[in-house]
Amino acid sequence: MAFLYKADPVRGAEWARLFAERRPDLPFHVWPETGDPAAVRFLAAWVPPADLATRFPNLEVVFSVGAGVDQFDLAALPPHLPLVRMVEPGIIGGMVEYVTMSVLALHRDLPAYLGQQREEVWKPIRVRPAARRRVGLLGLGELGRAVLAALAPFGFALSGWGRSRRVIPGVTCHAGAAELPAFLAGCDILVCLLPLTEETRGILRRDLFAHLPEGAALVNAGRGGHLAQQDLLDALGSGRLSAAILDVAEPEPLPPGHPFWSHPRIWLTPHVASMTQPETAVEAVLENLDRHARGEGLVGLVDRRLGY
Amino acid sequence: MAFLYKADPVRGAEWARLFAERRPDLPFHVWPETGDPAAVRFLAAWVPPADLATRFPNLEVVFSVGAGVDQFDLAALPPHLPLVRMVEPGIIGGMVEYVTMSVLALHRDLPAYLGQQREEVWKPIRVRPAARRRVGLLGLGELGRAVLAALAPFGFALSGWGRSRRVIPGVTCHAGAAELPAFLAGCDILVCLLPLTEETRGILRRDLFAHLPEGAALVNAGRGGHLAQQDLLDALGSGRLSAAILDVAEPEPLPPGHPFWSHPRIWLTPHVASMTQPETAVEAVLENLDRHARGEGLVGLVDRRLGY
Repeated sequence: MAFLYKADPVRGAEWARLFAERRPDLPFHVWPETGDPAAVRFLAAWVPPADLATRFPNLEVVFSVGAGVDQFDLAALPPHLPLVRMVEPGIIGGMVEYVTMSVLALHRDLPAYLGQQREEVWKPIRVRPAARRRVGLLGLGELGRAVLAALAPFGFALSGWGRSRRVIPGVTCHAGAAELPAFLAGCDILVCLLPLTEETRGILRRDLFAHLPEGAALVNAGRGGHLAQQDLLDALGSGRLSAAILDVAEPEPLPPGHPFWSHPRIWLTPHVASMTQPETAVEAVLENLDRHARGEGLVGLVDRRLGY
Repeated sequence: MAFLYKADPVRGAEWARLFAERRPDLPFHVWPETGDPAAVRFLAAWVPPADLATRFPNLEVVFSVGAGVDQFDLAALPPHLPLVRMVEPGIIGGMVEYVTMSVLALHRDLPAYLGQQREEVWKPIRVRPAARRRVGLLGLGELGRAVLAALAPFGFALSGWGRSRRVIPGVTCHAGAAELPAFLAGCDILVCLLPLTEETRGILRRDLFAHLPEGAALVNAGRGGHLAQQDLLDALGSGRLSAAILDVAEPEPLPPGHPFWSHPRIWLTPHVASMTQPETAVEAVLENLDRHARGEGLVGLVDRRLGY
């Protein structure tokens, strides 16, 4: 019985060290080293090998090292094989920090102020009290709910939208396609934390932006595939949107000369909002291995029909 | 008996409207209109008139419209005249937003990422968990304590320094000049929220920076006079400091061509961290007028010896 890791090798070395401490009985391999393929029962991967099912015939669980599984080809995974998203406090904490920072920066007009700074302009912009700044979350999973909890103490007017209905104290919740326009009409700052699925690909496009209040701002910490890039540029150009903070792109990295690199109202970071911390990620995986051994349900198990 | 307002006239119009609703019995004047000078009992000002004592012989209380009073010439104010700082939730909330945003932006390397963006570089920087990021507050008054409370949920390692000793749960507190070096040695991100006094003028200078860990970052949301500008430029140049977010300067605005305008590791905003909200400011002033009428102590009364 062995555990195989196939992702960033620097972190892989930390995983190996932590597994050696915590599960010395379980051989741990860092790709491309695999040991006896027939012994591999568990795989943690960012992108799994294409021939996974034939190459590792005794695989029991596949773990994504990321919060999402859109980088997996679900059709190529045997249907019986459990696929588990990473649900761990390191990912959640990182996302909470990034989105809180982004919402506060947009609320307090930092993109505009940094533009003024480079033009040597000293001009206050009237600030709206947080209670009158409406912040909306697209996506109410673990990450979205943790972000809402972090934003609440600042006094923002909070709302959220998800596929299925949620009740979150202090948050106006909307559900399903029919309620999306009403949700969007009340978002001065819109944050996308959706999973990337066939349904959500390209959701951040012209007709969605058209429902937002004039001058709204966007944070995309979901996936690059959520965003129609030209529509964002058009919306920033027309004033429909005032600014965007993007942690994700498609492709990553963006090609040289792409207009996002130099746009004065776009802040771009290299997919760093939420980075798995080896300590907490290994802890989460070990807990799921224990659950698996006891025949219990796994935390973060992906529903193949929903794609997340 | 009348109230005189001498500050930004746009906000003055809002103050006038709010006073008309709440205290219709108290005539309210917006400078330069004063009514009968002998009737003026209360003055709210950013910078008071130089001849205040002779011009308004029956003045009973002077209110600063800002959280600080360093813009007042204390020597020119009759010693018996109470001077009151603005203590109101609008100022506190604004400062909490600004400093939280700044600390998170520095923690998550946003100044470096925006620099990379303009050079079309997509390169993650390893993030340090919040629990290992040490954030220190210089100044533990109402604002500093509110900021610490807002930063606590993110899990930062928090410390603070003030003139007098404080006990704040979850915060390592230091007091007095003797403990300043030990405090500074534990600050990856240093936030200045001190009042500007003779003692604190120029405190953010070379020998203070020398006590910080290599690569520390600075937030100055105190006053421009706290900062030795050339020392900051030197510290950024040598790598002693990695970045600075400054809401204040001296003078304001900075002159054209000043190196802060164009420095890639300095974010500069035009003294907007904490802006008085007319609704909550008027509320705070009215409460103090009631206290004054009842002969009770005023909230925010300045100690002339300390200068704040």
